[in-house]
Amino acid sequence: MANIERAALVVIDVQVGIDDLFDCPRNNHQAEANIALLLAAWRKRGNPVVHVKHNSVSPDSPLRPELPGNAFKPEALPQPGEQVFEKTVNSAFIGTELEQYLRGNNITELVIVGLTTDHCVSTTTRMAGNLGFNVVLVSDGTATFGRASPAGETYTADQMHEINLASLNEEFCQVLTTAEVLDVS
Amino acid sequence: MANIERAALVVIDVQVGIDDLFDCPRNNHQAEANIALLLAAWRKRGNPVVHVKHNSVSPDSPLRPELPGNAFKPEALPQPGEQVFEKTVNSAFIGTELEQYLRGNNITELVIVGLTTDHCVSTTTRMAGNLGFNVVLVSDGTATFGRASPAGETYTADQMHEINLASLNEEFCQVLTTAEVLDVS
Repeated sequence: MANIERAALVVIDVQVGIDDLFDCPRNNHQAEANIALLLAAWRKRGNPVVHVKHNSVSPDSPLRPELPGNAFKPEALPQPGEQVFEKTVNSAFIGTELEQYLRGNNITELVIVGLTTDHCVSTTTRMAGNLGFNVVLVSDGTATFGRASPAGETYTADQMHEINLASLNEEFCQVLTTAEVLDVS
Repeated sequence: MANIERAALVVIDVQVGIDDLFDCPRNNHQAEANIALLLAAWRKRGNPVVHVKHNSVSPDSPLRPELPGNAFKPEALPQPGEQVFEKTVNSAFIGTELEQYLRGNNITELVIVGLTTDHCVSTTTRMAGNLGFNVVLVSDGTATFGRASPAGETYTADQMHEINLASLNEEFCQVLTTAEVLDVS
């Protein structure tokens, strides 16, 4: 498992427009408050914080860089000196200098939070694990939306969230709660 | 959507030992037969076929390279002249020359099949989409296993499969059936 005491906190796509991105209701509205708690703990210890921002290239996305929805939510505003990596796809490792930054700073341990569980958070967690980083994913520090299957079935946000975490846990990362992470950070 | 008529068929981890890898029952036992149908169609047209093989580095895995479980299943044996990429992690793009091979051969369209839906197939599909390839993922040409969530709930292989496809569809790829792909290949 990732050594939480020396991990970087990686905060993915906690941006104003994300709640307008999908039609179905989301789950876990406490995610932002939990992320704020984790950020406070990381800053208190002086451990590295990495912010990832999605600059959408989709014509209709509220996350396009020129739109107000691109801004970070108040709970996840970067502070001076914290790294911000801007991306245009789901993975925070594609088209960014994130991997180089982590390796250059001898950061091997990551705690990942952000939005959404099954798109950008899952993709970044998978690549982080496959690139050799030790990852903790915070179950209640992420959230997603209901989605329709290709066969036309609709699944709730909780179903999407829980099953995606089941796919990730013990294969790409360890899934813990905010309380469990704060206990050792 | 990927142009199926000029796509490469990418066959992931169809290896003898994979059914011994997990404790819970798998779904879609027709996947191997569907993969064989797709391989036959690709070979008939002379379109590129790419095989991906998992050489596990886990001490107890039946997919370790020195074990009989590492062998390709009979339905997915590579033929002479077909590319084989060997990997040690979930993504077929990490630690391999797959991306260089595809770019070097001007292959931009991929049809992906193989095992398992939510681990190696999902991770490779996500990276392929994020790297700019146009991807079709074949719903009945892949399969997975039941898994337990971090919270201790158990999900069936069908639940894992369907919800993971719902997360991938229209974000990283288009999900089609074998019959739909064969209709245009």
